[in-house]
Amino acid sequence: MPVGAHGGKRVTRADVAQLAGVSTAVVSYVLNDTGSVSAATRQRVREAIDMLGYQPNVNARALATGSSRLIGFIVPGLSNPFFGEFAVAVEAAAAARGYSLLITSAEGDEEVERRHIQNLIERRVDGLLVGGDAGHAVVALTAASGIRTVLFNVFDERPGLVTVGPDAAEGARAATSHLIAHGHTEIGLVIGAPETGGMEAREAGWLRALGDAGLAPGPIGRAEFDRAGGYSAARQIFAAERRPTALFASSDLQAVGALAALHELGLRVPQDVSIVSFDGSEETEYSIPALTTVRQSVAEMSAKLIELVLMPEPPSGHHSFPARLVLRASCGEHAADGTPLR
Amino acid sequence: MPVGAHGGKRVTRADVAQLAGVSTAVVSYVLNDTGSVSAATRQRVREAIDMLGYQPNVNARALATGSSRLIGFIVPGLSNPFFGEFAVAVEAAAAARGYSLLITSAEGDEEVERRHIQNLIERRVDGLLVGGDAGHAVVALTAASGIRTVLFNVFDERPGLVTVGPDAAEGARAATSHLIAHGHTEIGLVIGAPETGGMEAREAGWLRALGDAGLAPGPIGRAEFDRAGGYSAARQIFAAERRPTALFASSDLQAVGALAALHELGLRVPQDVSIVSFDGSEETEYSIPALTTVRQSVAEMSAKLIELVLMPEPPSGHHSFPARLVLRASCGEHAADGTPLR
Repeated sequence: MPVGAHGGKRVTRADVAQLAGVSTAVVSYVLNDTGSVSAATRQRVREAIDMLGYQPNVNARALATGSSRLIGFIVPGLSNPFFGEFAVAVEAAAAARGYSLLITSAEGDEEVERRHIQNLIERRVDGLLVGGDAGHAVVALTAASGIRTVLFNVFDERPGLVTVGPDAAEGARAATSHLIAHGHTEIGLVIGAPETGGMEAREAGWLRALGDAGLAPGPIGRAEFDRAGGYSAARQIFAAERRPTALFASSDLQAVGALAALHELGLRVPQDVSIVSFDGSEETEYSIPALTTVRQSVAEMSAKLIELVLMPEPPSGHHSFPARLVLRASCGEHAADGTPLR
Repeated sequence: MPVGAHGGKRVTRADVAQLAGVSTAVVSYVLNDTGSVSAATRQRVREAIDMLGYQPNVNARALATGSSRLIGFIVPGLSNPFFGEFAVAVEAAAAARGYSLLITSAEGDEEVERRHIQNLIERRVDGLLVGGDAGHAVVALTAASGIRTVLFNVFDERPGLVTVGPDAAEGARAATSHLIAHGHTEIGLVIGAPETGGMEAREAGWLRALGDAGLAPGPIGRAEFDRAGGYSAARQIFAAERRPTALFASSDLQAVGALAALHELGLRVPQDVSIVSFDGSEETEYSIPALTTVRQSVAEMSAKLIELVLMPEPPSGHHSFPARLVLRASCGEHAADGTPLR
């Protein structure tokens, strides 16, 4: 057991210097790989560090070198498994560049998000990745800090900001067109509350596919982007006399909630109602039936986020990534032998 | 826009002092709420801070005060939504005490876990919450750092360590006994690879319930604790000639994977096979059918974790929390009117 583990008193740089018989400056040289230190001295210092179990204090080191090799990742909400999977992918992309990720979850609370960002700024992280539609306060906060910030989970250009996101409008259009190709003419939409600054990209994509095919918009169920939201939106849509035969759900969780609601109503998927979801998280592979979904390019977006946030001066602009249709059973697809795809 | 947002040059304490017409020491007094500063001066300093958009550097402050009001939370893997939900609960418990959480995900990789912990130790967090069976290297690392550490997702006592976890053996026993009460006599188990240091608590609980009822152990399918693992374990179990009529799955994700496998095999749940899962994450409420599950006391464990990690010297010992059976449809429960519970 290292000596430092006894008693709990913190081992200092001075303790290391004393044991190695050098000055504290030499210990710093060895720790930071600076200064000219002989191989023998370097070896002696390293042994003293190991023997004492010394932990260099990176708060001090960050002050001196200005780099923590840490990136802050603020997710909209970890109770959505899509963001858990996204965090894992961003973590891998960061690790490939020698950086670690500090993750915080805002759970849709702007005040919590502001506090998390303030904390990470104060820790002098090397960059910030902020999910979703950051408010004006957050943008001012990160701009004032001078810490590079990239927004993710954003669907279109934000003047002056660096943003990364899926091409949600095209993904929703492709999903809806696929349902039209299956012969559906009454296609409902499950989505969140109306946006204040114009139509949400997924709603616009759904509407465009219907317009292109000369079809009237089906019913819209609006609720939270979670399982309970999808459940209640579907109950709402299917309570009406005129029922659609297909749904585009704007998130995987909403689709999973809608599946439960349809099951309760005795409606079979895909025989009575077809569904396509958006996100492409793993949960959709194992739902019953497995969901046809529009899958976001998670690995590619993660690599781009890390690339941008590590650039000395990332150019402002939006980076859009394709969201591609993955065919499974919920839209009525069948394997070559005629059995429904799982 | 704050002045600090121009040009990117970082605003210093000296800039604030100059604008407010005070010494840098007075700025520190105001920031740290120490020293005797008149209300008027305090007001002038605060205005200068706001005007310049000054961000106090907490790395420096942590060096001076020894506290960061940050707790590191190392989850075994964020691709498991249970841990996402757990992180959200721990975040809330930390916030209630004025602390923020920095989350990292190890995804089952010990080297990654070690690196994350090293990072958090170097950031001088106030405490560490480490998920799962931390290896010897991790325990030595946190002990040497002098930073209070509490392990979670642990099922029994670890000599010399502070641990929190569900009573997994009793939860598994209750789940299996419930299946026995439904008349099942052939009850399989879906679980991970065998433990090296003795039988895993959930396996022991399953076995005890069967033994207490005078029943022979059913088949065991061993695989990862994720959806793919549950799917393959169930395929393995139901490939045998002698099939069980019920399963206890050791995680929600394994149960969801098993549901997909049974669906593929044309076996109905609960009519042909009953299932009870372990964890109680939200996904089990919306599966088809909804899963009867043993739900961990997430809120209570989260509060205890924060309470322990903030104690000056938390006493070593294990804190066990009940995992309670939640009845839904997958075990054959019916509502008072005879319809299956969703």
